[in-house]
Amino acid sequence: MRFKFSLLAIFLEALIIVLFGIFVRYQEDQRITNRVNIHKTILKSFGYEMNQIFQDVHVMIFVGFGFLMTFLKKYGFSSVGINMLIAALGLQWGTLVQGFWHMKEQKIHINVKSMINADFSTATVLISFGALLGKTSPVQMLIMTILEIAIFSCNEHLVVNVLRATDTGASMTIHAFGAYFGLAAARVLYRSGLKEGHKNEKSAYHSDIFAMIGTLFLWLFWPSFNSAIAETEYLQQRAVINTYFSMAACTLTAFALSSLVEHRGKLDMVHIQNATLAGGVAIGSCADMDIYPFGAMLIGSIAGFVSVIGFKFLTPFCSSKLKIHDTCGVHNLHGLPGFLGGLASIIAAAAHVRLKGTDSPSAPMQAAALGCTIGIALVGGAITGLILKLPFLGQAPDENCYDDSVYWEVPEEETHLVGQFSDSEDHRTINVNV
Amino acid sequence: MRFKFSLLAIFLEALIIVLFGIFVRYQEDQRITNRVNIHKTILKSFGYEMNQIFQDVHVMIFVGFGFLMTFLKKYGFSSVGINMLIAALGLQWGTLVQGFWHMKEQKIHINVKSMINADFSTATVLISFGALLGKTSPVQMLIMTILEIAIFSCNEHLVVNVLRATDTGASMTIHAFGAYFGLAAARVLYRSGLKEGHKNEKSAYHSDIFAMIGTLFLWLFWPSFNSAIAETEYLQQRAVINTYFSMAACTLTAFALSSLVEHRGKLDMVHIQNATLAGGVAIGSCADMDIYPFGAMLIGSIAGFVSVIGFKFLTPFCSSKLKIHDTCGVHNLHGLPGFLGGLASIIAAAAHVRLKGTDSPSAPMQAAALGCTIGIALVGGAITGLILKLPFLGQAPDENCYDDSVYWEVPEEETHLVGQFSDSEDHRTINVNV
Amino acid sequence: MRFKFSLLAIFLEALIIVLFGIFVRYQEDQRITNRVNIHKTILKSFGYEMNQIFQDVHVMIFVGFGFLMTFLKKYGFSSVGINMLIAALGLQWGTLVQGFWHMKEQKIHINVKSMINADFSTATVLISFGALLGKTSPVQMLIMTILEIAIFSCNEHLVVNVLRATDTGASMTIHAFGAYFGLAAARVLYRSGLKEGHKNEKSAYHSDIFAMIGTLFLWLFWPSFNSAIAETEYLQQRAVINTYFSMAACTLTAFALSSLVEHRGKLDMVHIQNATLAGGVAIGSCADMDIYPFGAMLIGSIAGFVSVIGFKFLTPFCSSKLKIHDTCGVHNLHGLPGFLGGLASIIAAAAHVRLKGTDSPSAPMQAAALGCTIGIALVGGAITGLILKLPFLGQAPDENCYDDSVYWEVPEEETHLVGQFSDSEDHRTINVNV
Repeated sequence: MRFKFSLLAIFLEALIIVLFGIFVRYQEDQRITNRVNIHKTILKSFGYEMNQIFQDVHVMIFVGFGFLMTFLKKYGFSSVGINMLIAALGLQWGTLVQGFWHMKEQKIHINVKSMINADFSTATVLISFGALLGKTSPVQMLIMTILEIAIFSCNEHLVVNVLRATDTGASMTIHAFGAYFGLAAARVLYRSGLKEGHKNEKSAYHSDIFAMIGTLFLWLFWPSFNSAIAETEYLQQRAVINTYFSMAACTLTAFALSSLVEHRGKLDMVHIQNATLAGGVAIGSCADMDIYPFGAMLIGSIAGFVSVIGFKFLTPFCSSKLKIHDTCGVHNLHGLPGFLGGLASIIAAAAHVRLKGTDSPSAPMQAAALGCTIGIALVGGAITGLILKLPFLGQAPDENCYDDSVYWEVPEEETHLVGQFSDSEDHRTINVNV
Repeated sequence: MRFKFSLLAIFLEALIIVLFGIFVRYQEDQRITNRVNIHKTILKSFGYEMNQIFQDVHVMIFVGFGFLMTFLKKYGFSSVGINMLIAALGLQWGTLVQGFWHMKEQKIHINVKSMINADFSTATVLISFGALLGKTSPVQMLIMTILEIAIFSCNEHLVVNVLRATDTGASMTIHAFGAYFGLAAARVLYRSGLKEGHKNEKSAYHSDIFAMIGTLFLWLFWPSFNSAIAETEYLQQRAVINTYFSMAACTLTAFALSSLVEHRGKLDMVHIQNATLAGGVAIGSCADMDIYPFGAMLIGSIAGFVSVIGFKFLTPFCSSKLKIHDTCGVHNLHGLPGFLGGLASIIAAAAHVRLKGTDSPSAPMQAAALGCTIGIALVGGAITGLILKLPFLGQAPDENCYDDSVYWEVPEEETHLVGQFSDSEDHRTINVNV
Repeated sequence: MRFKFSLLAIFLEALIIVLFGIFVRYQEDQRITNRVNIHKTILKSFGYEMNQIFQDVHVMIFVGFGFLMTFLKKYGFSSVGINMLIAALGLQWGTLVQGFWHMKEQKIHINVKSMINADFSTATVLISFGALLGKTSPVQMLIMTILEIAIFSCNEHLVVNVLRATDTGASMTIHAFGAYFGLAAARVLYRSGLKEGHKNEKSAYHSDIFAMIGTLFLWLFWPSFNSAIAETEYLQQRAVINTYFSMAACTLTAFALSSLVEHRGKLDMVHIQNATLAGGVAIGSCADMDIYPFGAMLIGSIAGFVSVIGFKFLTPFCSSKLKIHDTCGVHNLHGLPGFLGGLASIIAAAAHVRLKGTDSPSAPMQAAALGCTIGIALVGGAITGLILKLPFLGQAPDENCYDDSVYWEVPEEETHLVGQFSDSEDHRTINVNV
């Protein structure tokens, strides 16, 4: 990737700085300029809560997503490193493209909320990255980041401002969108050479433990993610509680199902790393609704169930029959549970579940939002996949998939170096001279 | 564990969802319903601080406890995975059993504070889990979670509401309770086959570093743990400061002692991972008292001293003579320092150390609380141990202890896969044909 | 290090406890004693924000710095362990020496802000530790901690209170100071035996991933670090935004440059782990200034550029020609970007960039602050290096550098233990009998 990657990255950064110079300003202190709704303004724009929520979401994006993908035994550098690259580009680009929809006097005004939204737009690309992990180049990822965030912000505008659907925890606009976008791209970029599986597409013992760092930080801060854009403090608190119980119930169900479907009742790390999070995805659209704690737990349990079943049966089927190879199983963690979350919001809207202090959502609009999101994601992902296929973008040959050494300087290691403190190499390297 | 584990987990989740449906509701927004003490209500129930404290405690439970136990070389999946399972079950069950003591109109009302308390009840089980680590099955752990949290909530009610003892950082009700409960269960479940030590009961170089992730997140957020249920913001701040200095002093002492007792003055990771935290445990009961920063540092130093001595001399003695085998040394991290914390609170109460804005604690009541807690923990743990011994619950045979492959699908690994990027296997696997 | 280390550590802890007993008290609740500026007082002394910022900075010190240095394949215990030791000592000692400058009625009053400042003083030592990593003993580190924090607090007093320079994110007083102090000490402690490189001065695959834990937590919480001591909430928010965009731009630039300078366009983990953070360092002195988001991004991009170039060309030059061996490359992460941050603040002051609500900084004073800081750091570091060279302090011989087993009990490991679950050793250890 000599020069190609560097020049593209420098060009993008320079372009973004110029656009920031033209369009982006700090938000003036609203407590001074706007005395009407002082309490809410403080809370929402410069508020105490929001800073904490921002930090939590930020940790999810960089540590959560980054480490969740380190499960592959030879692809840890790329997982956590390219994740960081995508996120750093995505949050700058996301600030711009989301800001363009909300300009005041031709300027984009930045505050904590816009920083949270920029992290959100980045999450979408990181979900899609999971479907393509190990099969694409950093150059392709830069281009996908630019394209996907642009399409994402259009869809989000459509769902939130045109259809006026409710999607507080973004089951549809982030999770389902990111997953189906990535799957469509994966379909276009399908490599028949990987059909029989690849020797590197496996975890190692310690790489599975690294991945649990990602799982846990995602799990722990998901309540902040789902409550971040709730409209009042009360709804925010509701979203925290619903997400918390949905995830707890999901975890127990995922453990139970994992043992049920695996050989001799053993647990599978893939399920524990991923399916335990499905409850956070699925509760998203209903997170701030009055669905009672047991309702949240029901949704979480169903999500855990669906997710494990998806990993066990659907992923192999998609790979072998539909030619969709999904490295991290994002369909099971984000796609299906995101779709489930959309469905739950349609049902809740139809049942007139109230959203205290705000208008009730409308079932047809929720359904339209779900349909639009998946449609736009599939079309956008497929087109992006075609662009990524352009030959000059470069891509590792099949036999070098899932291997950091293609894009990274990796330590030349002897076999024994992890924790090996005795210097006796003799029992391993033997020169036999007969 | 085919079926047994899955069915038990599904049954428990279903039972909990039904109980939540009957009993659990969101807490109504107190700022609307209760205008009398508006500032305090906001702060304590939906407040800014409390959300942060909740997140910190949540990280301690899942990342802190989970990774602290990953030190065993072949038991990382179970440490961090079963820790997550216990915590997810425990926080649901803890919400119920603690809620039963505080129902209003036959309902349990959930807010941030009840979520913190649920995490607290979970901590008790995770401490006991440390004593049994590697020697029990997931099925046994589910049952222990249910039993221990029920007994814990009775003891907590006794200490806090009947005896009216002060135990802000829960040295007694969580740490001493969890440790002695686990030790009593470990005594009942003693396996003479492990007397000579087990080849898997060792750390690996990288597993010791994983464990430091747990240590550090526990260390860092312990001030939040100890201040979480302090009664006013002022006492909360006091608890943060006392805990912070107690832990810093404890850390220096633990390093000094570790080097003093070890062979040729070397440091021992076991002490650094565990004894550095003893200061947080021991300061718990006095955390919000006016003991001056140097008083907190003295308590922390003594705790660090006692804890290292415990690891070096007491743990081997208990294992060989008392037939109590304590895998993680919870007696040294939670038992002794928790007892020390109780003692310190008796002395402080006798010396009439004031708790600004609240009644002074009474020394006899503090002593009664300490005695009750340890007594109930020992009896409760022994009974739980007997139940866990029921043959149909299943348990790995001695030779399979401390081994993830009994309960988990583990990667089939070649020796060289960690960081091995050269494909030359020749220098390791040699077929000699003469 | 038998006895020497233990006795020194115990002596220091005892001394500190006595000094705390004499001088240190809790800060009284200012909301009661000072009703004049109630809002600001709450915010700054016991405030909501400050507690979160404290936690973030605390995580950076212990997890961030600790794990960032675990990249060496055999030196992880010392990196994360001795980092913890230095930090625990440093925050106690820093509370004292910083407090001596601000005593009221002969007493030091502790609150959240003094806890943050104590963490700051600790950061300085940890930066210097990075230059000496693997070549010094724990005893030497205890002594350096005491000396460096004392000198640091004098320089900080000079810069902030005498020169009245602005250095909100501490580019100069922490980063440049720590780096040049460490480099001067490294020059004095230069070992010609390490000139040809050392077999242990390399990373392993998983140790590089551990280091990314440090990188990410530093990266994520840097906005809190840079905004911690901003004077008003508005300036705090400004500092968060500037740091956030500086780091994002720096990351993209660091990736681009890494690929540009490396062999065949590959990325280098050393750059990703370190140079991505240079943007946070360089924006420090201007963090709360009105430099526009694009200005922050420009500073970040330049820092990322300079840092990668430093790692690639300057570090080898310093090591071979100037006899300054800098294990972690702190000159590239803290020295150069810190100097750059000082320069940027001089330019901004000269351009009369306003600091809303406070006096504008003065360019000559900024220049004086930068000069003083580097001068004092170099002299202080050289003197400290000479003291550390005293023969009775002990130091590992050259061949034992970068090796935990000198100071730690390390697991005796077989080669295959990471994730090896099959017991077949045969294919590795072969006895050849001809």
